[in-house]
Amino acid sequence: MVPATVTNRQIRLRKRPVGKPAPDDFEITVASVPVPGDGEVLRRTIYLSLDPYMRGRMSDARSYAAPVSLGGVMVGHTVSEVVESRHPSFQPGDVVAGYDGWQEYACSAGGGLRRLDRELPLTAAIGILGMPGLTAYVGLIDIGQPKANETVVVSAASGAVGSVVGQLAKIRACRAVGVAGSAEKCRYVVEELGFDACVNYKSDDLGAALRAVCPDGVDIYFDNVGGAVLAAVLRLINRGARIPLCGLISEYNATDPPPGPNLRPLLVNRATIRGFIVSDHSDRTGAFLQECAPLVRAGRLRYREDIVDGLDAAPRALIGLLEGRNFGKLIVRVSAEPGRES
Amino acid sequence: MVPATVTNRQIRLRKRPVGKPAPDDFEITVASVPVPGDGEVLRRTIYLSLDPYMRGRMSDARSYAAPVSLGGVMVGHTVSEVVESRHPSFQPGDVVAGYDGWQEYACSAGGGLRRLDRELPLTAAIGILGMPGLTAYVGLIDIGQPKANETVVVSAASGAVGSVVGQLAKIRACRAVGVAGSAEKCRYVVEELGFDACVNYKSDDLGAALRAVCPDGVDIYFDNVGGAVLAAVLRLINRGARIPLCGLISEYNATDPPPGPNLRPLLVNRATIRGFIVSDHSDRTGAFLQECAPLVRAGRLRYREDIVDGLDAAPRALIGLLEGRNFGKLIVRVSAEPGRES
Repeated sequence: MVPATVTNRQIRLRKRPVGKPAPDDFEITVASVPVPGDGEVLRRTIYLSLDPYMRGRMSDARSYAAPVSLGGVMVGHTVSEVVESRHPSFQPGDVVAGYDGWQEYACSAGGGLRRLDRELPLTAAIGILGMPGLTAYVGLIDIGQPKANETVVVSAASGAVGSVVGQLAKIRACRAVGVAGSAEKCRYVVEELGFDACVNYKSDDLGAALRAVCPDGVDIYFDNVGGAVLAAVLRLINRGARIPLCGLISEYNATDPPPGPNLRPLLVNRATIRGFIVSDHSDRTGAFLQECAPLVRAGRLRYREDIVDGLDAAPRALIGLLEGRNFGKLIVRVSAEPGRES
Repeated sequence: MVPATVTNRQIRLRKRPVGKPAPDDFEITVASVPVPGDGEVLRRTIYLSLDPYMRGRMSDARSYAAPVSLGGVMVGHTVSEVVESRHPSFQPGDVVAGYDGWQEYACSAGGGLRRLDRELPLTAAIGILGMPGLTAYVGLIDIGQPKANETVVVSAASGAVGSVVGQLAKIRACRAVGVAGSAEKCRYVVEELGFDACVNYKSDDLGAALRAVCPDGVDIYFDNVGGAVLAAVLRLINRGARIPLCGLISEYNATDPPPGPNLRPLLVNRATIRGFIVSDHSDRTGAFLQECAPLVRAGRLRYREDIVDGLDAAPRALIGLLEGRNFGKLIVRVSAEPGRES
């Protein structure tokens, strides 16, 4: 039971951002903690995942998912502890992955909740073995279809998705080349994650730098960012190249859609760009976890987390994510893990 | 035997165009008619096909095929009459399809020559049942994978490729929408070819005009032109849309690669753009002819030709093609058809 004095802090969308989101596009409200009805589960949020797609949910431009309504609680993947249950499948103390959004407590009939075993770090469920990991897997393996000795380039390479793409590419015997936004991130990508090379897109000549580290051209470009990086990589693609288009972070804050890359390389090289959304591919979760969970346990798939403390830190953290200021999977620690009260 | 007084006029690439080709990028030269050696076939060009890809061959920018060398004879598909043969498979009087280029006579060992039956118009071999027809077939059927009731949009709709795309789309029970460059072309596309609608891309508001004739969105966009038309169609695509990228005529004369369309619709709609080159798909020739030759004979696949007379007219005709000044498949009549001396 939650003591009556405890409240449920929530972060809501106060107004739709024009361009870059600002802190006052959000508002913090305080509600009472819901009381679970028959068949319902009340849980306390431990971790909230912050991801680039959230910028899309703040906007009402047509997209693949409905926007957060004005005044609505921001959405997001979560790891939570069950604190009260009137549902036969969940017991207090269970730790579950869900989609509870930016709030301290959530209550529902339990649809979409998945009980986590405690063998792996809890944050893995919203990171490397969660939506970002599955995104990397589907985009690289199913859409990219990597073959040994091909060159795979991935943007946002130190991020939650990109870091997995490059490591899976290495496991598939490909050359893995990252693109990231600082020398420190590039070092991490090569030294810690084992990519063959990583280019700092803020360096002077992106095209020349990429060419130097892709001597055999580019067979797969897993794109998270669009913009100048996409244009530069397109100039290096090989015949039959595949370009899974996962995100366009560089333009999520644009007020008008900017022009895209010249597409002549697609024609000359008989190449394919294919947009995809991970939620269409949930049937691949089993195959993904079967391959990747053991790799995570064995330390062969590595990851880095950028954890900020407290729900109130979420707005500024998301704003920073859209500018590449995070370093690793961005997660908000909303409350302490069970057994690890601090 | 060709009388000794007969010469072989040839059109060669004198210099590489910067931007729009000009007549003096070409030069007309006169050579003697080759004498076939053992195993060789001498033929006289009857028809020369002019096609947008030739602009690419005039440039030395990296492409899918080697450029015409400076001073070299311009390349192109041809219909010819065998005038002398020392090859067992060809007899004088045979009419063959080949790739003899911009010249009155050609001589070789016969590789790449295909004897034509005379049941169909000879020009069909370089038009509706030749490379342009196969391009339409491969792009629409194999890459586009049309399903009944889908909406197919095609640019350069009155041209050699586009006209076939729309008619095949109708045969596959799709809605066929063309984009063309004049009211007269649009009328032809709807009234003669049976498309459901055709938009004049020079009309004031391309986006609104397209939206009006694609009330259910766009499932397949067969793109021949790139540029503003591609950008406008992308804003209307449906989930899972396929975009066979066949050509980018609107930018073939550009001196610098212009930017492309914003790609966010690809992401939101999980859509695919795939560049293709017809020469990769010659294994589909049999299936194509099996379906389309009877349709042409039955008058169910219609086509229009824009025939100019005399080899010397070829440079200006190609220049006009790149500006959309032709109306129908552009062909040069280099000499009279056998039995139809004029």
